[in-house]
Amino acid sequence: MTPPFEYAAEHRERFVRQLSDWLRIPSISTDLAFKNEILRAAHWLADDMRRIGLENVALLETGGHPVVYGDWLHAGPDKPTVLIYGHYDVQPAVMEDGWTNPPFEPVIRDDKLIARGASDDKGQVMIQMKAIESLLATGTCPVNVKYLIEGEEESGSTNLTRFINDHKALLKADLCLISDTGIRSADQPVIVYGLRGILSMELIVTGPKRDLHSGAGGNIHNPAQAICEMVAQLHHPDGSVNVRGFYDRVNTLSDQERVLLNRADDTDAEWEAYMGDLPVWGEPGYSRVERRGARPTLEINGLASGYAGEGFKTVLPARAIAKISCRLVPDQDPKEIFELVKARIAELTPPTVRVELKMLDYGYPAITPVDHPATQAAVRAYAAHFPNEPLYARGGGSIPVVADFQNLLGLPVVLLGFALPDSGAHGPDENFSLTMFARGIDTVITYFDEVASLTA
Amino acid sequence: MTPPFEYAAEHRERFVRQLSDWLRIPSISTDLAFKNEILRAAHWLADDMRRIGLENVALLETGGHPVVYGDWLHAGPDKPTVLIYGHYDVQPAVMEDGWTNPPFEPVIRDDKLIARGASDDKGQVMIQMKAIESLLATGTCPVNVKYLIEGEEESGSTNLTRFINDHKALLKADLCLISDTGIRSADQPVIVYGLRGILSMELIVTGPKRDLHSGAGGNIHNPAQAICEMVAQLHHPDGSVNVRGFYDRVNTLSDQERVLLNRADDTDAEWEAYMGDLPVWGEPGYSRVERRGARPTLEINGLASGYAGEGFKTVLPARAIAKISCRLVPDQDPKEIFELVKARIAELTPPTVRVELKMLDYGYPAITPVDHPATQAAVRAYAAHFPNEPLYARGGGSIPVVADFQNLLGLPVVLLGFALPDSGAHGPDENFSLTMFARGIDTVITYFDEVASLTA
Repeated sequence: MTPPFEYAAEHRERFVRQLSDWLRIPSISTDLAFKNEILRAAHWLADDMRRIGLENVALLETGGHPVVYGDWLHAGPDKPTVLIYGHYDVQPAVMEDGWTNPPFEPVIRDDKLIARGASDDKGQVMIQMKAIESLLATGTCPVNVKYLIEGEEESGSTNLTRFINDHKALLKADLCLISDTGIRSADQPVIVYGLRGILSMELIVTGPKRDLHSGAGGNIHNPAQAICEMVAQLHHPDGSVNVRGFYDRVNTLSDQERVLLNRADDTDAEWEAYMGDLPVWGEPGYSRVERRGARPTLEINGLASGYAGEGFKTVLPARAIAKISCRLVPDQDPKEIFELVKARIAELTPPTVRVELKMLDYGYPAITPVDHPATQAAVRAYAAHFPNEPLYARGGGSIPVVADFQNLLGLPVVLLGFALPDSGAHGPDENFSLTMFARGIDTVITYFDEVASLTA
Repeated sequence: MTPPFEYAAEHRERFVRQLSDWLRIPSISTDLAFKNEILRAAHWLADDMRRIGLENVALLETGGHPVVYGDWLHAGPDKPTVLIYGHYDVQPAVMEDGWTNPPFEPVIRDDKLIARGASDDKGQVMIQMKAIESLLATGTCPVNVKYLIEGEEESGSTNLTRFINDHKALLKADLCLISDTGIRSADQPVIVYGLRGILSMELIVTGPKRDLHSGAGGNIHNPAQAICEMVAQLHHPDGSVNVRGFYDRVNTLSDQERVLLNRADDTDAEWEAYMGDLPVWGEPGYSRVERRGARPTLEINGLASGYAGEGFKTVLPARAIAKISCRLVPDQDPKEIFELVKARIAELTPPTVRVELKMLDYGYPAITPVDHPATQAAVRAYAAHFPNEPLYARGGGSIPVVADFQNLLGLPVVLLGFALPDSGAHGPDENFSLTMFARGIDTVITYFDEVASLTA
């Protein structure tokens, strides 16, 4: 073992203790009542950055919760600069959600460190911190590094796009590295080289000026019925999206990419674990894994109208709401897709109700080609520390900031994630495998070495 | 003025005070927390019954909230017996629903007594009580009367059908009189001679075993989408119900009945008051008033799936619910209609989701012909105290107990209602017109006279 790996192995227990200390701070970004905890968590991180030798460490104002920044730029001007992104804020968590232990009192059970934020994302940020610590404490780092750890990821990274735009010089780099995703199993890493964009919308259908007694029914186009009639026509019977132009800008999958992607398809057992014996549904002509990562979707995320609680109320509802989102793939543009959906909704609107479609939020899709040197460096780094070569996947979810790094800073983005499928992110008993924590630190150390050999 | 009318006029303020006292008791039947208030309201009524000279007054056990019973049977065996039905329970009410005054602290504003239950149904029960009081206090009553005032109307009269079945001898009568409906305006009474039946159902569509992150979308037939696709096919594009056999047992309207009914159609101004400029919708070939009272419907009363609150959640919902009800007309049978809807749902169920249709409740439609002597007596009673002759209407709503009185006791049922269209039943600022309260008492006194002249 070379010195940085030795150092990481020797200090492993301390690393876990430090992570536990950080996890004790309930840095919930979605609730202003936790503003002080957010600041405590940011200062905790900044202190650790200073202690391990990062420079220019500062809490930078964003308009919301601060960004924690630190860098080390002494690898030399001919060496690449890696911009590392992560977040120190966490999802809310209360015992009532089903935790077996208070969410902000970390405990270790078997190989798992259980606490809110353990895997999403404090544990993975700590991997990045402890990798650079291990390098600097035993000599030097082969690449220049800049850390941008934000405090608003769980509340939509509201201020980050503007922050990136305002700090282009500070954030100048050759590639962006993010540890905020998962792998397939402890033995099977996955390179997530693409993420879908998102467009979220609200469809509001109104009829009578107020809820009526349903005994009045017979003359009124019930908004709950009308919204169903409209929503039902947003897909073709075959499962493809029935919005004119929706697929126009979707990049075609090459045969090579399809082969790569399909190596990582769900097993039937995985499918059954969450779907039971229900058959697969979806756009014809594509496999499960293609539909989930490389094809766009239109989903209904919520419906509400009238009374739907226990029992029954004789209400003819005045309004009905559907929350609708599209997951988008390169080169779809969320703003353009919104206009297409809006046009389709207009087409479907009967004269007997009033209809409004609102855009709620959006984020662009992102992709770093599998043959990009920064991606291939990640493949080699994973391969060095895991029993199996990594698989390739395109993530079905969205991390809108990834597209910002690509589009605003022109950086390839590499997702080097270490969370296991049972890490419970956003749910009760969130946890992080201590084996993955250690293996992650080693993988990042190797990744920096692999990147150093690339042309800056 | 004859003595009973004089008595009613003289004691009017006291009648209103008594009604107000009764309205102060929040006898909410849908919430067990109010069980004591229900009992207080029942005892209050029983005490008033005894005070005014009714006999055999008792709170009768039903298995749920008690029925308040009282009678006066001294008109003679050759005189008809009128069974009077009403209810002393009320809908829930809280300030947050938009009340301008605490709902259980009655106030008088202009001509209105404002409180939960003012028109539905305590105010109208008090009309019945004060009519018999005015008669007995000034002499005698020309008919025999039996009062059956229940405490579970707002929670579906759950126990009343069995209670009626178990007390056929006690409830033996010649006709049933109910004041629990409305009229068209202060000057325009309406004879509601028919009521629709009801069948309420819950449609549950499930997919994944638990809610998934919507980033997983693409392979799963989203239950929120599937329920929309199914619900959308429960009507034909023309607005008629798309359930095989649904209309098979519907009685044809005679030309004479259509003429009578259409005299009481909405004015355009009335339509616009609650629908604005939206056009009328519904089954082709029928007028507004026919569709609302004499034709059956299928309505969506509630929808729920995923997250539909403020903002957006990236959820692919595991289940979706629709509350669905049919309003039924003679001779549709709710149990048979349930089977027809179930068969249609089975037809519409795709293989990619799980679907369940549950019956929640039902009640039979009811009708008393317009030329029935008991109906014509009501026409004359209204005409005696209102500026205009009554119109004829079939109610769109359902009072399932009406069908029970018809079917179990073999009684013609007369609805002698006095609530104005703006009485706000089930809504905020429910109120009862004091003019209608007084006019109602007079009308009932006259009705008893009219009925006395019919053959027992």
